[in-house]
Amino acid sequence: MAPRKKDHILTATLELLAEKGYEGLTIEGVAGRSGVNKTTIYRWWPSKAALLGSALIDARVLDFEVPDTGSLRGDLQALLRGTARLLTTPPASDVAVAALGAAVNSPDLAMAAKAFFADRFAREMPVFERARERGEIDESTDPMMIMDLLAGAVWLRVVFRQLPLDEDFTDRSVNALLDGVGRPGDPGAGRPARRGG
Amino acid sequence: MAPRKKDHILTATLELLAEKGYEGLTIEGVAGRSGVNKTTIYRWWPSKAALLGSALIDARVLDFEVPDTGSLRGDLQALLRGTARLLTTPPASDVAVAALGAAVNSPDLAMAAKAFFADRFAREMPVFERARERGEIDESTDPMMIMDLLAGAVWLRVVFRQLPLDEDFTDRSVNALLDGVGRPGDPGAGRPARRGG
Repeated sequence: MAPRKKDHILTATLELLAEKGYEGLTIEGVAGRSGVNKTTIYRWWPSKAALLGSALIDARVLDFEVPDTGSLRGDLQALLRGTARLLTTPPASDVAVAALGAAVNSPDLAMAAKAFFADRFAREMPVFERARERGEIDESTDPMMIMDLLAGAVWLRVVFRQLPLDEDFTDRSVNALLDGVGRPGDPGAGRPARRGG
Repeated sequence: MAPRKKDHILTATLELLAEKGYEGLTIEGVAGRSGVNKTTIYRWWPSKAALLGSALIDARVLDFEVPDTGSLRGDLQALLRGTARLLTTPPASDVAVAALGAAVNSPDLAMAAKAFFADRFAREMPVFERARERGEIDESTDPMMIMDLLAGAVWLRVVFRQLPLDEDFTDRSVNALLDGVGRPGDPGAGRPARRGG
């Protein structure tokens, strides 16, 4: 399938999801919106869950750049600003929030959400590989936990607390995690405790 | 209203939400499940959104203990283990995930979710006040950001990534945030950069 045609279909899928919810999303609706024959869509995606899974990973509206700023701090700040933009700037935010929110209550959609996060994490890994080569983190550091903490914070603040992201929220979050928020004198602080624990 | 009767109503509300979703939740259904007259319920809660908002904050099934272990590290680890339990142990997990997932797509429910997180945060504040008195954090530390990072990580890992929580995931997350994951030699690391930035 031609890439442009495919993107029309995937974009129509995400738009309809944001407008009508997962229940209201149909292959027929996607065919109508994208101007592509229903049977053509079924030939490539056997179900609306498959179509949505593909849309979450391949649609241009959810695409993101993997930064390479020269430092882990800079890369994480850029990644997190991107996540914040994704969750606050329409139309991507409507789509992302609708899809991932709905995923919680639909096993089909949950698979799509899981694949979405796995795909993003795979693409974020070079940030951590470069940081290891530069000596900014060591082998004991868990990249997925770092992304869970940072992306989770943005999600919680924007979607659940519904508080605006302070302009510096994402940068402060990255700094807090890299530098630590405990005072150096905190009993139990320090790397040996963390590594051994 | 007698506390026990109120809890029956609120519990029925959360059960029906988990079983039928927000669309399927009705005051009539809550009346049937709880054995309380519909008009009585309407007298106390004018809408199902109001009822659900009350349920998220006051139902015993979502209750949590605010720890006082003697250290910020211990308190945060206990809080986060509680969040992990809430999101992974039925029936609370069914209710919490259904309610908060649905909140994303319903303005009524979004208000309830916002109130739920605001209530929890208000109850978590003493943990940070005690930590300040003990000198474990200083005035520049942002308690809500700490909770966003930690609770967001658990949410993302369990609900979106659908990965099991390693037994030590919550403790490691707390340690990472208190101690920092950057190596001390990382350019740009250190408290002055964080405070001044």
